[in-house]
Amino acid sequence: MDASNEYDLVIRGGTLVTAGDGFAADLAVRDGRIAAIGEALPAGREEIDAAGLLVLPGGVDAHCHIDEPPYGGAYLADDFRSASRSAACGGTTTIVPFANQLPGRPLRAAVEDYHRRAEGNALIDYAFHLIVSDPTTSLLGQELPALIEEGYTSFKVFMTYAGYQLEDPAILDLLALTRREGALLMVHAENGHCVHWQSQRLAAAGDTGLAAHGRAAPPLVEREATHRAIALAELAGARVLLVHVSSAEALEQIRWGQDRGLPVLAETCPQYLLSGQDDLEKPGWEAAKFLCSPPPRGADDAEALWRGLAQGAFQLASSDHCPYRLEGPEGKRSQGEELHFQKVPPGVPGLETRLPLLFHEGVQRGRLSLQQFVALTATNPARIYGLYPRKGGLAVGGDADIALWDPARRVTIRHADLHDACDYTPYEGREVEGWPVLTLSRGERVWERGEGERGRVSEAYGRGRFLARTRERAATAP
Amino acid sequence: MDASNEYDLVIRGGTLVTAGDGFAADLAVRDGRIAAIGEALPAGREEIDAAGLLVLPGGVDAHCHIDEPPYGGAYLADDFRSASRSAACGGTTTIVPFANQLPGRPLRAAVEDYHRRAEGNALIDYAFHLIVSDPTTSLLGQELPALIEEGYTSFKVFMTYAGYQLEDPAILDLLALTRREGALLMVHAENGHCVHWQSQRLAAAGDTGLAAHGRAAPPLVEREATHRAIALAELAGARVLLVHVSSAEALEQIRWGQDRGLPVLAETCPQYLLSGQDDLEKPGWEAAKFLCSPPPRGADDAEALWRGLAQGAFQLASSDHCPYRLEGPEGKRSQGEELHFQKVPPGVPGLETRLPLLFHEGVQRGRLSLQQFVALTATNPARIYGLYPRKGGLAVGGDADIALWDPARRVTIRHADLHDACDYTPYEGREVEGWPVLTLSRGERVWERGEGERGRVSEAYGRGRFLARTRERAATAP
Amino acid sequence: MDASNEYDLVIRGGTLVTAGDGFAADLAVRDGRIAAIGEALPAGREEIDAAGLLVLPGGVDAHCHIDEPPYGGAYLADDFRSASRSAACGGTTTIVPFANQLPGRPLRAAVEDYHRRAEGNALIDYAFHLIVSDPTTSLLGQELPALIEEGYTSFKVFMTYAGYQLEDPAILDLLALTRREGALLMVHAENGHCVHWQSQRLAAAGDTGLAAHGRAAPPLVEREATHRAIALAELAGARVLLVHVSSAEALEQIRWGQDRGLPVLAETCPQYLLSGQDDLEKPGWEAAKFLCSPPPRGADDAEALWRGLAQGAFQLASSDHCPYRLEGPEGKRSQGEELHFQKVPPGVPGLETRLPLLFHEGVQRGRLSLQQFVALTATNPARIYGLYPRKGGLAVGGDADIALWDPARRVTIRHADLHDACDYTPYEGREVEGWPVLTLSRGERVWERGEGERGRVSEAYGRGRFLARTRERAATAP
Amino acid sequence: MDASNEYDLVIRGGTLVTAGDGFAADLAVRDGRIAAIGEALPAGREEIDAAGLLVLPGGVDAHCHIDEPPYGGAYLADDFRSASRSAACGGTTTIVPFANQLPGRPLRAAVEDYHRRAEGNALIDYAFHLIVSDPTTSLLGQELPALIEEGYTSFKVFMTYAGYQLEDPAILDLLALTRREGALLMVHAENGHCVHWQSQRLAAAGDTGLAAHGRAAPPLVEREATHRAIALAELAGARVLLVHVSSAEALEQIRWGQDRGLPVLAETCPQYLLSGQDDLEKPGWEAAKFLCSPPPRGADDAEALWRGLAQGAFQLASSDHCPYRLEGPEGKRSQGEELHFQKVPPGVPGLETRLPLLFHEGVQRGRLSLQQFVALTATNPARIYGLYPRKGGLAVGGDADIALWDPARRVTIRHADLHDACDYTPYEGREVEGWPVLTLSRGERVWERGEGERGRVSEAYGRGRFLARTRERAATAP
Repeated sequence: MDASNEYDLVIRGGTLVTAGDGFAADLAVRDGRIAAIGEALPAGREEIDAAGLLVLPGGVDAHCHIDEPPYGGAYLADDFRSASRSAACGGTTTIVPFANQLPGRPLRAAVEDYHRRAEGNALIDYAFHLIVSDPTTSLLGQELPALIEEGYTSFKVFMTYAGYQLEDPAILDLLALTRREGALLMVHAENGHCVHWQSQRLAAAGDTGLAAHGRAAPPLVEREATHRAIALAELAGARVLLVHVSSAEALEQIRWGQDRGLPVLAETCPQYLLSGQDDLEKPGWEAAKFLCSPPPRGADDAEALWRGLAQGAFQLASSDHCPYRLEGPEGKRSQGEELHFQKVPPGVPGLETRLPLLFHEGVQRGRLSLQQFVALTATNPARIYGLYPRKGGLAVGGDADIALWDPARRVTIRHADLHDACDYTPYEGREVEGWPVLTLSRGERVWERGEGERGRVSEAYGRGRFLARTRERAATAP
Repeated sequence: MDASNEYDLVIRGGTLVTAGDGFAADLAVRDGRIAAIGEALPAGREEIDAAGLLVLPGGVDAHCHIDEPPYGGAYLADDFRSASRSAACGGTTTIVPFANQLPGRPLRAAVEDYHRRAEGNALIDYAFHLIVSDPTTSLLGQELPALIEEGYTSFKVFMTYAGYQLEDPAILDLLALTRREGALLMVHAENGHCVHWQSQRLAAAGDTGLAAHGRAAPPLVEREATHRAIALAELAGARVLLVHVSSAEALEQIRWGQDRGLPVLAETCPQYLLSGQDDLEKPGWEAAKFLCSPPPRGADDAEALWRGLAQGAFQLASSDHCPYRLEGPEGKRSQGEELHFQKVPPGVPGLETRLPLLFHEGVQRGRLSLQQFVALTATNPARIYGLYPRKGGLAVGGDADIALWDPARRVTIRHADLHDACDYTPYEGREVEGWPVLTLSRGERVWERGEGERGRVSEAYGRGRFLARTRERAATAP
Repeated sequence: MDASNEYDLVIRGGTLVTAGDGFAADLAVRDGRIAAIGEALPAGREEIDAAGLLVLPGGVDAHCHIDEPPYGGAYLADDFRSASRSAACGGTTTIVPFANQLPGRPLRAAVEDYHRRAEGNALIDYAFHLIVSDPTTSLLGQELPALIEEGYTSFKVFMTYAGYQLEDPAILDLLALTRREGALLMVHAENGHCVHWQSQRLAAAGDTGLAAHGRAAPPLVEREATHRAIALAELAGARVLLVHVSSAEALEQIRWGQDRGLPVLAETCPQYLLSGQDDLEKPGWEAAKFLCSPPPRGADDAEALWRGLAQGAFQLASSDHCPYRLEGPEGKRSQGEELHFQKVPPGVPGLETRLPLLFHEGVQRGRLSLQQFVALTATNPARIYGLYPRKGGLAVGGDADIALWDPARRVTIRHADLHDACDYTPYEGREVEGWPVLTLSRGERVWERGEGERGRVSEAYGRGRFLARTRERAATAP
Repeated sequence: MDASNEYDLVIRGGTLVTAGDGFAADLAVRDGRIAAIGEALPAGREEIDAAGLLVLPGGVDAHCHIDEPPYGGAYLADDFRSASRSAACGGTTTIVPFANQLPGRPLRAAVEDYHRRAEGNALIDYAFHLIVSDPTTSLLGQELPALIEEGYTSFKVFMTYAGYQLEDPAILDLLALTRREGALLMVHAENGHCVHWQSQRLAAAGDTGLAAHGRAAPPLVEREATHRAIALAELAGARVLLVHVSSAEALEQIRWGQDRGLPVLAETCPQYLLSGQDDLEKPGWEAAKFLCSPPPRGADDAEALWRGLAQGAFQLASSDHCPYRLEGPEGKRSQGEELHFQKVPPGVPGLETRLPLLFHEGVQRGRLSLQQFVALTATNPARIYGLYPRKGGLAVGGDADIALWDPARRVTIRHADLHDACDYTPYEGREVEGWPVLTLSRGERVWERGEGERGRVSEAYGRGRFLARTRERAATAP
């Protein structure tokens, strides 16, 4: 090996874990990419001692909301700077937020706007899903195919939310388009008509506290929309991905489809595994910390979701990071101080805590194997969204995006130690065992745990690059 | 890198595929183990050009019958020499046949006997499952725990077959033992009482042709035994593995258990994916080529099994290689020339064709991804049976057991080109796309395709080593 | 017994069959009502010898279309005269057709119009369901509650058909209203958006023959709408009735709801039990004889529906009589001679053949008990729609509506022998065993089989009376 | 009507309720049979004013244990005198206890013995099921067919209980025999091997209190045996009746079978609807009042069972009356004073309380209609066991077995007011609304409520007659 082939960095003596494997080996980086995995690799210009640590692919968080336009009067606290920092500090090295089509505006404009917001700010690499709220003929015929061609290969639609809610014909058209173009439709499956109807009824009955949020959107409205989304995909002959599934009833529908051989994909999130209606019944603004859509359910639902993760009904575990601040006029209280379930914007932060929570509750408690943990949080999202093998694995030739993980480290989660721009975490005070100690993005240290709990964060904002994604690949491709 | 660190062999330019990944890289071998995976690896003492080829972990066939005691008057055609050769020529590098306790004999004696049969003969590495037919107190209390300790960590029981059939109390005791000892129970789930009762009825009605084999053991007898095995495991708090599942009804029970979070594992085999009752209705001895237990079913069942493979309900795809010769007095005709469903011993050969059939019908036809193919045929069996990471993956430090695979090679299966000691294959004349071109066992070439279809087989019989296996590992272990 | 108490009519020596019972007895009628059931009853002014015959409650056909406004350019062939005559000749003594709100017109006007059409014409008694196509605030707030109060206690909505299709909010409002008012919502469950979308796709591909009707509305569009209707009812806390269920997939959803304790009712019809997609593939206009919505499916679906009838998943077996003539410009060919699945109006006649077909295929073939036959075709519709005990049973005090049934009579169905105003029957040439020989309405002979096959029909058109219906009754009421 | 035709008794002005109907009418009795049902019937020699009362068919309790041989050292408290009296006082007019084959003894001897026990003692009519514990060839070949011919058309087998437990081959033979002979097999479905194994384990762990009874036979052992019984019946092509179903898991299996069209019948009992594991955890001997097999479960199971009753998954609601006294050495304490789950004989009394409990909890609470109540407790058992129309309905010509029922009567259940020979009821202190006020057996008053709570009981012991039963009837028979 001549000097020009010398490795830039060798991580030595760790245990490498991927979606399919786990073994002790060294890992070498050159030019920001993984150059080799082996035993007794030659020395690198730099060396990291990973004895006792896990060498994991950096997480891919494929469901997060960053710097989006205001929802009502509420603003998301995180821009690309704080969001990408927070992700990196939790072991995540790729984020895929949404470029959100404002109703009536061109989708292309949203994409350009988001590029402006990300450029110069992101600490780690990023791609964009699209949100389609206004599927005009020209959007279906020209704009969207062109965007897919350019690497925006997935887009989300809502079956709820005034202004965004799409009805069946539009969803069918979009599904047919994904089939034609090799793209993927993500569906927020709640029957918005039902939610609206039930909300009116609750409001009329004076049942307007935050706990009413769960009653306004009971599991049946998610179950119904899930069944419908699957049926629409079946008719269109397309894949469909159900995002942020919250209930056992919706999961039952997903399994029903999968068992019949339909290409149904699904995602769940820590908030549905770890919080519930009980939290929405906490007094005062405390409940607002758990208010998200769909609502968190209960212990039985959470157990069902864990089984769905372990058995492969879910392919993805994402954060659905949606960081409205609790205090101040721009977040949860943007509509005033009234504790009204229709006035508090739904959403919880979670980019940084996603991996540690799933590691502790999943791997440490025996619900998931290490391989499943990696698959759900990194490899599967990368594969499904067209980022693999560049991201999501420890593939030779892929980006050296790595989370060096200390499985024995005990951490009590405190928002004061986190790195987002929000002002709370729903998991305050929760103890977990296992946390990253170092995050590499293309071989560069973007975060490492130092003396204090907050560690050392890179200041290289703007180093993160946009990732154009590939379309669906045939099954025989590696 | 000094000379002492030089690689023995570098496979260059291929596409590596594992249970979780797929990417282009070189792979280096040293001392029979995988030393490194990387790009532009230094030259080895020997080089193999793998351009255009897949570099796969050698297959692990964890269900095969080799050189067992006679069944009735029938003898298995394959000894360890021909079986291990045949496996190697099909890309399989590890076999796990059964050490079969003869009723009334000590299990230890069977184990010793099998070691004698394997030693000096095996071309590739091997482990042994046990078959328990006589679970005496001393077997449960001393013999079996000692054998588990020595690396025989899995054993099969039969819910059918006179002389072997165990009733529920014995199965419960064995399940409790597996839980205690970290072992695994494999179950042949057919209700033998039902099969016997129904066989008598068919025989009394004169319905004795080979097609009656399917009617004697209809799916309900497999479904019932499957449900029962799951219930027994649930009571004992133990894992259970249902082997060679043949029917949609049994699969439905397996899913039922898995969906409720029970630790139910399952295996199916090519004969249930590719043949059926139709084949049992072929004229004359042709039908005998397809006669196995449980019986092959039909197209709907096969489609359900494929979905079960794709969705993870099955973790294993094995051969259940059981090579009775068609001609001559020692095989299918051992009870004479009568075509009687109770007289023809059940079983079909399949060690060599397992991987090509599953590759073609699974990967090439879009039913399985390459990763799923590797997981089902190599990684999962290695993990589940305690051979990983030594076998079943491309783990650095693991044995360099590798199948170099040409995905574009078209082969028409002919028994004349296969390497077992049987005299037919059920798949004669079937065309497949994809076949290994070279098989390495611990870095040594045990087979490579040469000019003729049968290729060059190593003569190093006896090089294969016994593999003592590890017990169940905790979920957090890599 | 003094003369004033003398019976008007005694039916002597028959076997009485009701939804719950079956025994030999005489039945006496006085003043048009059943006065007594007993052995050796005193002589009546008139006697009927029923030896060897079954004495059944007259059928209640609660799903039929009579003299409705044109659909496109097509007219229903039957007015109340011919429809009520045809019903009577098939053993049915009560019909419940629809008063159909024309889009944009008041529902009250439709009701008044229908009364005008029925009065002076009906040979047997009748009630009206309503069809709600335009649920305005005033309709929900005043008109509909008033109509329910007056005895129009059930109404149907469509989830398909341009101009009639209601979306979820309207259905929720109507369900809530039924709950409040003790009424019942009937749902035509097909996802109209899907049917439209798929029809466009088929038309664009030039697949426009009548066989495309089944492909335009595959079982999944019924399954989806069925699931949705059940979910909406669950949210509203109301009962719901799925009419004319055609597929095993929809039935699976219905069972799913019922098994969870939801108040889901369901109906199927002979056309889904006895015809299928095969019939839609018959050449030329022959296929049009079987074209109805939802489309008839296949043998597996029909078997599933029979099981649903036998096990109580269905409570109702109705005709969905919809008599478009095959010949002439006012029926199936109203849009011209083109065999285009979107141009031929859907619907088949069936008032007269409903009971004989269900008796033969159900009772005679061992799929249904006699009691189930009576329950499905007479007692359950009477109970569910608020006509019991006046109609639907052999209740003392109830109307003497009776079908005297010869279970041994063999009839080859020929349209020439039927009594409707249509010009074909889908069941031409089919042989059945069992047919009524006499139909009594309030003790009066409205039809009896004479020498010819068409028998003697009463000329007393106009004797049929309107039946105001009662609301849902508590479970403890008899 | 001449004097010879005069009615013996007319019940005037009540509301008659049957399995299918409910209407106001008079009911006339002549010669012990129902002679007429009508309005304004002629006067009878005797008249009963039933204004405000329900006129119900007397109950048929088809699962009760009376005067059987001792179980261990325990004796049933009730002989035919006290049992038939107690049944009558609760509105039941037919009982079908078991003639129990002692292991190794001829079944014929048991039948003769039971006749001796019943004759001269029974206050109401009775039939016998058989219990088959020793299915020898001669029993299968001669004895049982002869007994079926004589009217013992149903027999029960146990899948648990040492000495009684039958294995699959014997059950298959018996099922095939029922199919051949038109008889019916009743199955106590618990996997006795599992119960024994688990009991040993609990006992070894010192978990021997009465609450361990539920843990020794958890729902999975009932589920497994239920699945197996259904599979055996499927193989034999026979009907099967699952008795005293206790758990939602077993019910799920029953529904699974029924939904696939298998002829699976099922029964549950008040103890599984109204008590549970909580009761087994009551202190001291109080728990023994609820100890029966299978064990009572919990609230979720009970709710599932209620739904199963309402939806027709269950056809029968019986008492499984098994009256071991709580005090004294012959009952629950026959093995001494130790509270050991294996020493206290399982069984609870319930003949007299069955109907009032089901009426109150079922009808009054809106879970069952009156018709369903009658069907489950009288008509269905009569039909299924070959007693209809003589028993179980209000059929003209059938026996005048009638319960005159006051739906408004409020009763607090106290054992002191009951009429059995036991010394407790599990329902002590429970309030119900609805109780019979008069019970007629073949037109004779066997009980009527007088001044005191215990009412006036007939002294005519011995008037009850044996009922030979008919075999399965074809579906077309009335």
